[in-house]
Amino acid sequence: MKYFYQMNAIDQLRIIFLDHLKNRIEEKQPAGLYDPVHYILQLGGKRLRPLLTLMSAQMYGAPVKEALDAGLAVEVFHNFTLLHDDIMDAADLRRGQETVHKKWNINTGILSGDVMLIMAYRLLESYDKDQFNQLTKIFSRTALEVCEGQQYDVDFETRDDVSISEYLLMIQLKTSVLVGCALQMGAIIAGVGKEEQELIYNYGIHLGLAFQLMDDYLDAFGDPETFGKEVGGDIRENKKTYLYLKSIEDEHCATELKEWFALDHEKMNEDQIEEKKEIVKVFFEESGGAAATLDAIKSYTDKALSSIDQLSISEEYKKELRDFSIDLMGRVS
Amino acid sequence: MKYFYQMNAIDQLRIIFLDHLKNRIEEKQPAGLYDPVHYILQLGGKRLRPLLTLMSAQMYGAPVKEALDAGLAVEVFHNFTLLHDDIMDAADLRRGQETVHKKWNINTGILSGDVMLIMAYRLLESYDKDQFNQLTKIFSRTALEVCEGQQYDVDFETRDDVSISEYLLMIQLKTSVLVGCALQMGAIIAGVGKEEQELIYNYGIHLGLAFQLMDDYLDAFGDPETFGKEVGGDIRENKKTYLYLKSIEDEHCATELKEWFALDHEKMNEDQIEEKKEIVKVFFEESGGAAATLDAIKSYTDKALSSIDQLSISEEYKKELRDFSIDLMGRVS
Repeated sequence: MKYFYQMNAIDQLRIIFLDHLKNRIEEKQPAGLYDPVHYILQLGGKRLRPLLTLMSAQMYGAPVKEALDAGLAVEVFHNFTLLHDDIMDAADLRRGQETVHKKWNINTGILSGDVMLIMAYRLLESYDKDQFNQLTKIFSRTALEVCEGQQYDVDFETRDDVSISEYLLMIQLKTSVLVGCALQMGAIIAGVGKEEQELIYNYGIHLGLAFQLMDDYLDAFGDPETFGKEVGGDIRENKKTYLYLKSIEDEHCATELKEWFALDHEKMNEDQIEEKKEIVKVFFEESGGAAATLDAIKSYTDKALSSIDQLSISEEYKKELRDFSIDLMGRVS
Repeated sequence: MKYFYQMNAIDQLRIIFLDHLKNRIEEKQPAGLYDPVHYILQLGGKRLRPLLTLMSAQMYGAPVKEALDAGLAVEVFHNFTLLHDDIMDAADLRRGQETVHKKWNINTGILSGDVMLIMAYRLLESYDKDQFNQLTKIFSRTALEVCEGQQYDVDFETRDDVSISEYLLMIQLKTSVLVGCALQMGAIIAGVGKEEQELIYNYGIHLGLAFQLMDDYLDAFGDPETFGKEVGGDIRENKKTYLYLKSIEDEHCATELKEWFALDHEKMNEDQIEEKKEIVKVFFEESGGAAATLDAIKSYTDKALSSIDQLSISEEYKKELRDFSIDLMGRVS
């Protein structure tokens, strides 16, 4: 029963956030610039990052409504990165709908993305001087790190000597820092001190790492019905994920895995790709890479859960945050 | 003699600025992200915008060194817009060198541009809370307006009913607001009040409009030796500049001009394009469009000069600013 109650609490926050998103992002001229912004922001998604901002503010005692603009800034920034990443990946679809550069064109995608980055900064202007100062600085640092993470991701595509620690740094920059930032922003709005801000930020870092590693795992072993993306998409595109990097630590599997990951998917038909996916998954399991990935997910989830213990929030909220974290990882646990 | 002395004063500021640019923008990893940033920032250019920030701070009594980071933020932002605009225009050359997306690739151009926009914000973090607040807000508003101006410019390419006032709004957004912002930032750093900030901002708006209209004029009638870009480039690409829009107000010339501006330059050889340029220039003069453009340049320059009279700066600085403005327009006066 508690579980369902909490889901409702989070669903309620989501409804409040979506309502704010709809009202706060005004229809503006020129339409060629702002229509794509509305389009991508209304494509859906779980809105996890802004929810974390709202939850964090609430847990530290601030009214949820005060956190709405900061949450929206995080969501607008996140969608800016999706928009520009989709251009870079030449992706046609996002959440089952046409991507912005596909529906309009690349130039529109570039410029509308740029304006979203600026809009994210402007959303922070509704806070008082002190909060604006703190929020803008953590936001800028995070935004820069996300760009660095994206660049490492691009660099890794053409490198065959990526280490586990380099990979972990990349996903920390590309994914986790924004999760940490979203949580820290809520804490800033509630007026808590720097040390406490760091604690909730670190919880976000661990949660983000666990979440991204789970995404790597589910790409191979997820349920096609619930995964939301193409299962085996990383295998198709030879992405050197944690799962792959751990698997090639096993000498017996390394040679064959590397050969499979040297194939160009554009020169293969769908039957060949399906065959590759099946074989690679066997190697992922036999090498021990799959088990090592599950271990790492568990380890980062545990770190996230122990970070919660250190927070200065009520026991009730600690329980809510623990349940939320476990629920987020629920698909593999 | 006075003239040369002032040129030296401005040249000195430029040297101080270039030194700051070199030291402040550190070599950072990942190189794939930051190398293009260094590359474009060191391609050269007149550095007019940051110089205006330094001049404005100095005129209002602040030490020049305090304005360096704000000036650099303006310059980094300006180069971010050039980087993304070059991708959108598929331009191969910038200041005689390869553009970023040509030297690297489009994805690098997009991501390195994004990081420059964030770097510009971060440069403002060296100011105290009050100044950071004011600087960031004027910067965000300006950045958003520049994106809007760029979108109008794109929209106008496929419209044949652009009015003079729409065109003027577009160049105000695309060019003038950043000139105004650069000047206002200097005033903020010197701690002057809002009203005075608006006065120097308005001087920048008028100066920027005069400057952009002069650029339109010189595109057709400039000296190929000193113009720095292809003379007649706007004619080649059928750009509906102020010069064109004023020229088609003359009914006798409108029909033929519109026919010339309907030709696709990609389907013409260079001889045909040269012929088109010569004929179009005759129409620009016969229609009275060229004279009307010179009048408009003079009118905005005069407005800029009278704005100077209202400023609360010393007579000496007023003279310096007047000479600077006239010198900037010197190519046509």
